[in-house]
Amino acid sequence: MGLETLRDLLGARFSTGVSERALHGRSEAHFPPLPPDAVAYPENTEDVAAIVRSCAAQSIPVIGWGAGTSLEGHALAPNGGVTVDFSRMNRILEVAQEDMLAVVQPGVTRAALNEELRATGLFFPVDPGANASLGGMAATRASGTTAVRYGTMRANVLALEVVLADGRVIRTGSRAPKSSTGYDLTALFVGSEGTLGLITELTLRLQGQPEAISAAICAFPDMGGAVEAVILTIQSGLPMARIEFVDAANVRAFNAYGGVEMPERPHLMVEFHGSHGAVQEQARAFGEIVAEMGGGAFQWAETPEDRNRLWKLRHNGYYAARALCPNAFPITTDICVPISKLAEAVEETAAEIAASGIPGPILGHVGDGNFHALLLPDKDAPDEIATAKALAGRMAERALRLGGTVSGEHGIGMGKLGYMEAEHGAGWQVMGALKTALDPQNILNPGKLVPQR
Amino acid sequence: MGLETLRDLLGARFSTGVSERALHGRSEAHFPPLPPDAVAYPENTEDVAAIVRSCAAQSIPVIGWGAGTSLEGHALAPNGGVTVDFSRMNRILEVAQEDMLAVVQPGVTRAALNEELRATGLFFPVDPGANASLGGMAATRASGTTAVRYGTMRANVLALEVVLADGRVIRTGSRAPKSSTGYDLTALFVGSEGTLGLITELTLRLQGQPEAISAAICAFPDMGGAVEAVILTIQSGLPMARIEFVDAANVRAFNAYGGVEMPERPHLMVEFHGSHGAVQEQARAFGEIVAEMGGGAFQWAETPEDRNRLWKLRHNGYYAARALCPNAFPITTDICVPISKLAEAVEETAAEIAASGIPGPILGHVGDGNFHALLLPDKDAPDEIATAKALAGRMAERALRLGGTVSGEHGIGMGKLGYMEAEHGAGWQVMGALKTALDPQNILNPGKLVPQR
Repeated sequence: MGLETLRDLLGARFSTGVSERALHGRSEAHFPPLPPDAVAYPENTEDVAAIVRSCAAQSIPVIGWGAGTSLEGHALAPNGGVTVDFSRMNRILEVAQEDMLAVVQPGVTRAALNEELRATGLFFPVDPGANASLGGMAATRASGTTAVRYGTMRANVLALEVVLADGRVIRTGSRAPKSSTGYDLTALFVGSEGTLGLITELTLRLQGQPEAISAAICAFPDMGGAVEAVILTIQSGLPMARIEFVDAANVRAFNAYGGVEMPERPHLMVEFHGSHGAVQEQARAFGEIVAEMGGGAFQWAETPEDRNRLWKLRHNGYYAARALCPNAFPITTDICVPISKLAEAVEETAAEIAASGIPGPILGHVGDGNFHALLLPDKDAPDEIATAKALAGRMAERALRLGGTVSGEHGIGMGKLGYMEAEHGAGWQVMGALKTALDPQNILNPGKLVPQR
Repeated sequence: MGLETLRDLLGARFSTGVSERALHGRSEAHFPPLPPDAVAYPENTEDVAAIVRSCAAQSIPVIGWGAGTSLEGHALAPNGGVTVDFSRMNRILEVAQEDMLAVVQPGVTRAALNEELRATGLFFPVDPGANASLGGMAATRASGTTAVRYGTMRANVLALEVVLADGRVIRTGSRAPKSSTGYDLTALFVGSEGTLGLITELTLRLQGQPEAISAAICAFPDMGGAVEAVILTIQSGLPMARIEFVDAANVRAFNAYGGVEMPERPHLMVEFHGSHGAVQEQARAFGEIVAEMGGGAFQWAETPEDRNRLWKLRHNGYYAARALCPNAFPITTDICVPISKLAEAVEETAAEIAASGIPGPILGHVGDGNFHALLLPDKDAPDEIATAKALAGRMAERALRLGGTVSGEHGIGMGKLGYMEAEHGAGWQVMGALKTALDPQNILNPGKLVPQR
């Protein structure tokens, strides 16, 4: 059988062991285990190309694996095949301070890159919460808390090296800040979820560490006030570095799981970046909006340690909420709407969840119009699960009705395939045509993103 | 013949007249006339779809036409066919102030949009100089003077409506600020130069008009000082709204053509946007860098009228330089390099041009590492033309050697096809495969951008 070729090629860096396969058949979401037939651990681009060539010759599926933090089953192996685990391709190849860019292998995590950058005065801004791999973040077009200021992976990936479905290696983009030389292949591969090629190197834009950083939380008497404060803030053009909403149920989870004692009310968690003067000016302007909307006093996180604690709390929101209902079948949602429709989207969603009786804390990157309800039906109650799925479906419909999108940042994977036609219409068939053009055998991450053949 | 079908369809909005064809066979650059067989003037998306369906049924080429300001022959008709002139699709369909976006037809020019926005407190930032159509700007991924602050069309197009090669109409993107739902079709069509589809509607991001705007020029004793000042400015993270370099030869042209009296030395032309305090702070910080690099005092453009005059001077740089040598065969160049390589790129280029004896004023959007030499060989001197072409070729090679790109903003069209393989390698074949997937008959703008079959 064909897998023997890969064993000859990779030796100990190839495994068909049950436990390795099982590890790569799990995800953080509700999908049943879907393990691959084997796991490969390439150490360089040539390894990846050789793996793909071998699999192409035998029509074996190839699935990329970063840090395993995806929430839509992107890295599962519904058709079996070989999972390419990039954990050994975790070198930072270059930090070009003068050009404010870094060249990394796909297995580098965002935390590892920022640790390396600490002494340079630069940082990589995209922060999805999980300590994801940068290759995985590019593949799902990740964003998170700071996208409102610094953009998503779309804006922060400058160039890529990609192994195509036939094993050819291409480079997209350049180190120049912009280019008009043909189709934007970088943008095409960012967000393609491993279905068009495997990313083997990334050139990333870096940002200067701001002179001053200031973070704070503040409580609101009701959800409406908090959301309206966000809308006013964005429309006033305040360059917020972060502006996150958490509802009262999330605060309850933070209190239980994060060891804090916050009032069980909706909160905004915010951060300002800039010169000392600019940060003060922004904080003052934001404070006026908060006061107008009935929000309480800011609790400032003054030191870097306090700030880290604050954002760790936020980043663990998913796990904290899950811990509320340990017997739940968690269904994540991820809609994103125009900012003018944010209040309508959040409030309708909250009302429907409340009426359903199913726990469903809401939090999100509301500065981008993006929020999540984590629906937590009992895993032993099929009717609750069906109700939760219907709630998620209505959220998606709501996003589309309001001019938005069914996924702001988690991506499609297997979990959101059912919404693609509704969102893109004939555009989804165009995606399928592009997929067929670049991967005619459909070996790259089959079962994800595109119409299934 | 098939064109009769279109005449029946469009009536007076269809012409095969010699003068209309000739008008649409010309460009602002050095290409020989390449007129289409006919010109169509659609008034809505359904017209465009009908034109494309009719042409597809008969394998007739279809070429989009915006304002005719492209510099690489994008809208010429080397294979004949029907030019689709979007000048009657020039309506601003919606300005959504709360969401800071505008929905426009492709024939709207950037000046017309900004005129419409004047009272709203918003503006559309991308400014390539020419009063191009927004559809054309998207199709060539245009940028210009303000991209250093606000990004190129890549960053400022949120969603599109596109007519495909078979006449199907798709919508890409949404009104949400971000999305992770599949391949980034918006980014694929932006910069595709009409080879994958015809853009029939654009949703554009708008910016808040800054509280304060301040513009200035300053002279430098030499090119090196000016370029080093730019590099330091960008590396220091100063959020320049514009930072343009013009060399002494351009200043000579400005003086002759623009009715100004500037010292014939290299200049930087800059603009600051922000709050009153921020603009002052930026101007002070930039002033320190200028002084350190030996630059002279700022001449401020205080009023909006003075500012408009200053940028009009810059925008007319191309025409002013051409007026220097009325008998020239103008060859535009457009390389873009990483900021750390800008001095090397500009100085090597200037030295080679000087050694050649051919006039070649240099100017550019240097904050992005992007600059142009306008080479002006005598049109009756084939050896000068050959020398100029060789200079342009060496500039392209230099850009690639320094990690840059052969076109920062003008695009490929017919003019830069010869550099695509060198820049993209196998990636160019990938572009060809995408083209074949979406336009198997090769009717959309044949002869441009992709490998020719």
